[in-house]
Parts: sequence; structure tokens; C-alpha cells
Amino acid sequence: MFVRSDPQQKQHTTRLSLHIAILTAPGDLRQDKLNKEPVIIIIMSGTQSQATASSLQICRIMRPDDANIVGNVHGGTILKMIEEAGCIIGTRHCNTQSGDRCAAQLARVERTDFLYPMFIGEVAHVSAEITYASKHSVEVQVHVMSENILTGATKMTNRAALWYVPFSLKNVDNVTEVPPIKYASPGQEEEGKKRYEAQKMERLETKERNGELLMPVSAPDRTTKEPYTVGFSQSSLIHLVGPSDCTLHGFVHGGVTMKLMDEVAGIVAARHCKTNIVTASVDAINFHRKIMKGCVVTVSGRATFASNKSMEIEVFVDADPLIEAEKGKYRAVTAFFTYISLDKQGKPLPIPPMKLEGDGEQRRFEDGKMRYLQNKAKRLADKERQQ
Amino acid sequence: MFVRSDPQQKQHTTRLSLHIAILTAPGDLRQDKLNKEPVIIIIMSGTQSQATASSLQICRIMRPDDANIVGNVHGGTILKMIEEAGCIIGTRHCNTQSGDRCAAQLARVERTDFLYPMFIGEVAHVSAEITYASKHSVEVQVHVMSENILTGATKMTNRAALWYVPFSLKNVDNVTEVPPIKYASPGQEEEGKKRYEAQKMERLETKERNGELLMPVSAPDRTTKEPYTVGFSQSSLIHLVGPSDCTLHGFVHGGVTMKLMDEVAGIVAARHCKTNIVTASVDAINFHRKIMKGCVVTVSGRATFASNKSMEIEVFVDADPLIEAEKGKYRAVTAFFTYISLDKQGKPLPIPPMKLEGDGEQRRFEDGKMRYLQNKAKRLADKERQQ
Amino acid sequence: MFVRSDPQQKQHTTRLSLHIAILTAPGDLRQDKLNKEPVIIIIMSGTQSQATASSLQICRIMRPDDANIVGNVHGGTILKMIEEAGCIIGTRHCNTQSGDRCAAQLARVERTDFLYPMFIGEVAHVSAEITYASKHSVEVQVHVMSENILTGATKMTNRAALWYVPFSLKNVDNVTEVPPIKYASPGQEEEGKKRYEAQKMERLETKERNGELLMPVSAPDRTTKEPYTVGFSQSSLIHLVGPSDCTLHGFVHGGVTMKLMDEVAGIVAARHCKTNIVTASVDAINFHRKIMKGCVVTVSGRATFASNKSMEIEVFVDADPLIEAEKGKYRAVTAFFTYISLDKQGKPLPIPPMKLEGDGEQRRFEDGKMRYLQNKAKRLADKERQQ
Repeated sequence: MFVRSDPQQKQHTTRLSLHIAILTAPGDLRQDKLNKEPVIIIIMSGTQSQATASSLQICRIMRPDDANIVGNVHGGTILKMIEEAGCIIGTRHCNTQSGDRCAAQLARVERTDFLYPMFIGEVAHVSAEITYASKHSVEVQVHVMSENILTGATKMTNRAALWYVPFSLKNVDNVTEVPPIKYASPGQEEEGKKRYEAQKMERLETKERNGELLMPVSAPDRTTKEPYTVGFSQSSLIHLVGPSDCTLHGFVHGGVTMKLMDEVAGIVAARHCKTNIVTASVDAINFHRKIMKGCVVTVSGRATFASNKSMEIEVFVDADPLIEAEKGKYRAVTAFFTYISLDKQGKPLPIPPMKLEGDGEQRRFEDGKMRYLQNKAKRLADKERQQ
Repeated sequence: MFVRSDPQQKQHTTRLSLHIAILTAPGDLRQDKLNKEPVIIIIMSGTQSQATASSLQICRIMRPDDANIVGNVHGGTILKMIEEAGCIIGTRHCNTQSGDRCAAQLARVERTDFLYPMFIGEVAHVSAEITYASKHSVEVQVHVMSENILTGATKMTNRAALWYVPFSLKNVDNVTEVPPIKYASPGQEEEGKKRYEAQKMERLETKERNGELLMPVSAPDRTTKEPYTVGFSQSSLIHLVGPSDCTLHGFVHGGVTMKLMDEVAGIVAARHCKTNIVTASVDAINFHRKIMKGCVVTVSGRATFASNKSMEIEVFVDADPLIEAEKGKYRAVTAFFTYISLDKQGKPLPIPPMKLEGDGEQRRFEDGKMRYLQNKAKRLADKERQQ
Repeated sequence: MFVRSDPQQKQHTTRLSLHIAILTAPGDLRQDKLNKEPVIIIIMSGTQSQATASSLQICRIMRPDDANIVGNVHGGTILKMIEEAGCIIGTRHCNTQSGDRCAAQLARVERTDFLYPMFIGEVAHVSAEITYASKHSVEVQVHVMSENILTGATKMTNRAALWYVPFSLKNVDNVTEVPPIKYASPGQEEEGKKRYEAQKMERLETKERNGELLMPVSAPDRTTKEPYTVGFSQSSLIHLVGPSDCTLHGFVHGGVTMKLMDEVAGIVAARHCKTNIVTASVDAINFHRKIMKGCVVTVSGRATFASNKSMEIEVFVDADPLIEAEKGKYRAVTAFFTYISLDKQGKPLPIPPMKLEGDGEQRRFEDGKMRYLQNKAKRLADKERQQ
């Protein structure tokens, strides 16, 4: 089953002997032993499956960061593992013939059901196999099992089917050809072809639906805004507080909050300048209220002031206790970040002037200018005092 | 050399490490200044200080994920390290006397300048020292140096001052008392007190300003929305694509995108249900276009349909090439996620009915109902076929 | 093929995979039984092997953050994956009999050689098997293969042996009994017992050596130190233990500790050599005491020996319970890491000779030289035996 056509045969044998070396104690690798037990090769397939081109297994322990507060592993964690397995096996298969080196790009995931929850501390086992190959795509079927290593209980939690399309690494717009696979029976190939045709049809349909929906949803509608206005670069992100964001006692580390603030402010600055921007300074930040585990944090930034050399961005952090909603949303932190814009050699570039709209923006610009001038004066005074 | 039995000497060092930090700034190196200080000071320089309660050093190599595409370390990465050092040293100090165990909570960061950029592969050294203690707060001063371990070049990139307030672990609303520290001179205590008073004043002022600004900025304004409407739970996040999100060839892994989609959809579901929600299924997802390194990804979700047992959330992924802005923003993926709501024992809870507003929401609800019924019928058919 | 709705069929598969587990131990091979099973089932065994108690495989793509700037995967990344596999398989095995639920805690890693470098974009395959069980410990042997999924090239990059000791989850100070394993031959059990006795002896010896060294190593003031001295390259880092560093039961994963150790040792080596350095080997590491959640970990490294081709770095790990300070700081682990220096083409460069200062450094250098010569002799003997 795992034996492939001639060019691969040699490789196959090499891989196998390696594996036998692995499975037997060192020094136990004897050619005569191997010859006496040809069957062992088939048996090994269980543990050496990584070396075969058509199947793969990934597993790891579920950590606190993979789950929500009550310990349920996020569906997204599972989907990410599934895709990692598919990407490895797809890329591996598409490179088993001569020609351009290529990478397998995810084109579609079929409907996926989460049959059972998975929990922190369990081991997720993801097994992937290539089950169909068309001229330009491969189907990878994936199974996910959860294993409780304390009780030994295992459950199949997911089944998924993914379609990958290989593109050439020399020319990323060039889709390469997929090597054929061997099927257990003609019927299996037939069924694969049916799945292939069905998904192709559906992909075309969605493409159209997507076209229709191209307007943004809830995000700030930058497309209708003029460049260099506050509205154009304004950005916000939400972050679900995870265990690693918190102290042992369940409060978000101030440093985590500041990192998110810098991330948003940096996006605002990059949207305004469209260059490499770097943080130049942060004004004093006050942390008014603690942010608890289980909150969703919304971090929003907007440009307030720009001189020729730097721009100032105001950042707001709002905490929203998702489940204990009666506690209400509250503002936890605000701050001003200042960015400068750099060219490819790291030399400062001028900041595009802001286009102000409305009284609020004008007022905030004046306030920002004041802070800018005060800081400038303070820097000069410090310099003089040091001399 | 490293024994610090004399408390005065220890404090003395504190003051001095500042000197040395200043001197490391290139161009500011004056031999005469150095000669005035006893040699011992230079050796102490706060680097071995992790053993003492009142100073600490953290260092680590800057990794690709700490920086932007051109290799500049994010200001947020530095701020996070600074705060980690402050949190450790603050918590340690506040637990040096008997009484309730406590944790130090960040209350304020003074204005921070980023003097020089730091790059991937350099080592960031963060040194923190407690420089003032009031009855209920400690001031931690932090210095950050970058070290190029290949050339040996070092630069001081940041100085920061942070204020921490300890709270009791038994009762997190209870602020505990801070043990006193020894000062090198009465003058030092005096200066610390001035800084303490100044920041206290400023904190009060900002509190007021913040009150005024409590309306949300660019985020979807959930506060004005009625619960259970689409607008109320609608959410979106932005994510700056980092190196670990991408394949070697600079394209975002499909699995990374799906994880972000599940994160947003989960927040929408939690905002609607206010319970523990888990992913039940994902409809087929098509990946229309690759997402490149250097993009900002906006992931938005909105409720489309709710039955008694589950709710469906539509998720959109838009990619925005930040720097090569001429390429334009584009929709990369869309999908439908289905969630169920669980009680504390993991048993299903009913989903609150959606309040629909407008024709669009009504139409999407009907479409969602269709998908729901089709899936239900398909499941039943599968079951029968298997029996 | 993948539909498993029929409970009987599922059962069947499970039973089979068990068979295969048994069969993978040579000697227990029954041709007749195998032939009765349809071929298709044998294929599944590949994807099912996670269900067997005595072997396990982990794999994942190496990402930018797993490697240094020139793309060499850190030895610490590999050590962490090795330990994750060992922890899963060890914990799983120790829970295969009735009695208290328990977790397997890393007690020791035997000397590990890094045979070939691994690079970003390659897939690391880690295979682990339980190879010996004493009353209170299990030996896990691990092999690591690198796979270039573009070219299909695979290499065995590491072999490691780890010892785990199970502790009861009800009472973490209580070591539980290990279920026996089946050996392929009495000779295999005998050899395992020899390895067990040898490591037991060595563990006792190191315990004493460690006690002696409890004073902090402490980091450097490198600016006053001459290049190539021990003081010049000496380094230390501090890490606040987070949730993702720990097992469900609140103890730091051995792999997390080893990754930090490799990070510090790598910085020491880079400071000394100022080139691209890679981990060549790690001497046996003993984990004397568990590190608890809520600790601050200080990891310090100093050069002890340099030959022309490699340098040895001693690493200390000290744990400091931040809040429960009365428990006192303690030394948790010590180890010797060996690094080699590479030029831009990946070819070995000579190591700059060390400048020794004082008797301590001289003594440690002699000890290091002894270890170096012993390892060299052992390698030669192994080579000859294999011919």
C-alpha cells in the first residue's frame, strides 16, 4: 500500500531502515533479522507514518492558552492544528515529483463538526491522509481524537476535509501539477472525484456571493474615508483575555495591555504614513481599573496630532466582562503614543499632514500640539541642565 | 565584591546605575566623569542584582515575532518586558514583611521615550530597581539596553518609571501597606516624594478627563444597542500578521486565519448568550485569496441566525496590505460558525432569541434558517443510512 | 472507510491498534493474525497509533521563532518537543493500572547529541517509546527526524533518553508505582536495568555537587571585563512562570526549563564567539526539584571549557517562589551545554581560547576538559564498535 512507483521505492526503503533503527534498541539493527521478518515493515507503518507521503500525525497537550476560562479547548485551536497537518502532508505530496518546488495553499475546508468538547490537559491527536488528487488540488481528510492520558479515555472529536492547491515557489501565481495518488479501489477514486466536483461547484457559487458582500461589516468604514483623515486610519482590535495574559491571581498584566495599545497605535500610524513606523515615546499611562480574566478588551486608536516629524495617537482600552455582564463595560486605560516614520535605511521621513474634520478633531489636534511643544521644551531644558 | 551587607552601599549603587546608563549613550562618554566615581560602582551596575530584593534584571533575545517586517522591535514588546520586571520586583518587595500575601498591580507608567531602535537578534536587558515607596505604592525605575551579541555594541534604548500598588490576595479590593525602603540619602527620599506627589496629582486629573471621554471611539457602539440585536453582539478584531503566522514563503497559514475567525465568532456568541459557549460546527470555508506578510487582517463577525439550540455567526476576513497600499484591501475569506451555549455542568442551554432590525438582518436570518434546516436534514439522512 | 458509526467496527479498530502495539515489539509477531485482517485496517493503524500506550509521535513545522537569525532551529526548541513527547507517553503509561491518578515528572535526561542542524520550514518528527520501567520510574527513548517537505530529504537529528517518575495527583509528594512493560527479550530488560542502575548512581553524585554550588552565579558587568574571560560572556535571564509553562497540576514542564537553559547558554556562546553558534550536545541533566507555578526562575550560564572546536557552558536554574517567599529560593537544575561555532556557510569555525582568571575557573576548566576527553573517547569507542 505504501510502496510507490520506482523512483520512490529506493527512498522508501531507506526511510524504512531508518525507522527500524528507531524502533529497535541501538545495535539491534541486523539485516538478517529484517529479512526474516518482512511483515514487520507493514506493522511499523503505525509508528513511522510520518515518513510516508500520504499520511501524517500531529499531537500535543492542550494548554491553558488553548482554551476558555472553563477549560473548553477553542474550536480555533483545533482548526489550526488540522490545517497544520494538512499543509505538511499536502506540501510534501506535491513535491514528490520533479519540477518546480511548490507549497500547498489551503483553498477550502469542508463543513466541520465538533462532536465532543476537548479539555485542557488532554492530548489532541490529529491524523491526516491524502484521499484524492485532481490535476491541481489534493483532498486531505483529517481526524481528531482527544485522549485523557490519566484515564486512557479517547474520543473522536472532529473529522474534516481540506482542499489544497500547490503554487510554484518560483512564481507564486503559477499553480503546479499534483502528482497522482494510488487508490485502494476504483470505487474510492470515483467517490473522491465526486467530492472534488461538488466542492468545485460550491466554490464558484461562494465566489459570487462574496463579491456581493464586499462592503465591510462592523469595522470602521475606511473605504469611504479620505486618506489622511482621522477616520481613515482609526483602528480598533478586540482581544479575548487568555491565561497567559494574566497574573496567577487572574488580572491582566499591565504589560500585556500596553503591548496591545502599541499594536493598535502602530496600525493607525502605518495606515496614515504607509511606511515603516516605530514607537518614539509614550506619554504617562494611568491604569484606573484592573482588567479581570474572562474580559474582552477593546483597544481603539485614533490620530490626534501630527508635526512634520512625528504623529500622536490616542489609545483607549475598554474592558467588557463577557459572562458577568452585569458588571458592565468600563474604560480601563487611555494613553498617547508618538510614532515616527522611517525609510528603508532607517532615516526619518516627514509625516503626511492630517486632514481634520469637525470641531472635536480640531480641539484634540490643538491639545496634541500643546503636549508636543511642552515635551519639546522639556527635552531642551533637560539637555541644557546636563551640559 | 557581590556581598551587599551594607545597606547604604546598596542604595548608593542604585543612584549610580543611573550614571552608568547615561554614560553608555554614545557620545556622552566622558572619562573624567567616570574617574570621579569609585571603581566598585561600575562593577555593581545593577547587573547581578537579581539576587537582591530591590533590584532585578531580565534579558532575552529579540525574536522575529517581537518585531515588524523590517526587523524593528515593537515598542509594545519592550513595554511588556519593562512591566514584567516591574511586576516581579514590586510583588517581591511588597511581600517582604509579614501580613497578607499581596500582588503588585501596575497603577501608572511615566512618560517613556524610545531612544534607539532595537533589532531582531539583539539581546534586550531590562534592569529594574525600587526607587521610592509611599505607604501604598512603590516606584520602580527601569532601564533597557540593547546588546548586539555579535559586535558587543550596547545602547540604552529606554528609561521608564512605573508605579505599583499592592492588593491583598485574600481580598483583592484591599490595598495593603508597602514595606519602607532605605534611601542612600535624605535628598533621595525627598526627590522620590516629589515624584510621588506629582504623579498623584496627574492621576487625579486624568481620572476626570477619562470620565468625560467614556463614549467609545471607533468600535461598534454596543452601548447604544439593545441586547440580543445583531448590532449588540457584532464584533471585529484586527491582527497585524507576524512571522509566526506565515509559511516560509510569506503567506498566512490557513489555520491561523481560522483561529482568528473562531475567536471573533466566539466573542459574538458570548456577547449574545453571556454564557460559556463552544464551537459546534463550521460551514465550508473557501479561501479565495492568499494573505501576504505585512498585511493587517480585519476579522468581523455578526449573528445571522439563532435556533433554540444553536446560533450561527457569519465571519469576514479582510486583508489590508499596510505598506504596499496600492494593492488595496480585499476580502480573503468568509464563513459561518455555529455555537452552542453550555451551563456550568456542560449541559446545553437555550439560546436567547435574536431581535432582528431591518430587511438585511431578516434576509440573512432566513438564509441561516435554510442552512440550519438543510444540515439537520442531512444529519438525519446520514443517521438513517448508517442504521 | 472513515465512517465509524458502527460501534462494533470501532471496537474492532481499537483492538487492532492494540495488537499492533504489541506487534511492534519484535518477537510477538503472528503472521496468521495479520493476514486475517483486511489490508485497509492496517493502513488505519498508522493513524490510530496514538491509541497504543507505549509509543507516540509528535511533529510540527519549525517556525521563525524556533530558530536563530540565520535559520538554525534552537536546540532548546528540540529539547522542549522531546520532553513533551516523553511527558505524554510517560503519564499515559503510569496511568494504565488502577490506583491513584498520577503525572509523570521529568527526573533526568541522558546526554543528548545534536547530530545535524534543523532549519526553519522543516518538519520536526519526534518519536517516543517506553523502553524500560523500574518500580518507580520509566525510561523513554526519543528520536528526532528532520524532514524537508520540499525535497523529501530526512535526517535523524537527535536521539535522547529521558527518565520520568510518577507522582500522585492527590498527594504530589507521593511517588506512585509504575506498571510493568513487556520486553521483546530478557536481554532487553537486562540492558534496561543496567541503564537504570547507571543513571541512579549518577543522579546521586550530581545531587552532592549541586549542593556545594548554591551561591548565585550572577551576571556580569561585561563592560569592565576583558573579552574571552568567563566574566565577559557570563549571562543570566529571569522568567516569570506562566500558565502555559506548566502542567495542569501546576509544575513547570521540564521542556520549558531546558528551553530557557539553552537560551542562556546560547547567549554565553554567542558572546564568546561572536558568530553563529549552535547547540552540539547537552550532558546528562538531573531535575532535582519540581518548580511550582508562581515562581520566578533565574537561569544563569558561564563558560567552563573551550577546545578548538567546541565550548562548554554550565547552566544553573534557581527557582524563587515570589509570593510564598518563606519557602526560600532553591536550585532546581544544573547542566552542561556544548556549542560549536559556524561560519556563514555552516562550516565549523575555531573557538577563541578562554582567558581564565582565578583558581575556580581553572578548576572548572580542568573538569570540563575531562568531560570533553571522556566524551571523545566514548564516541571513538562507539564508532569502532559499530564497524
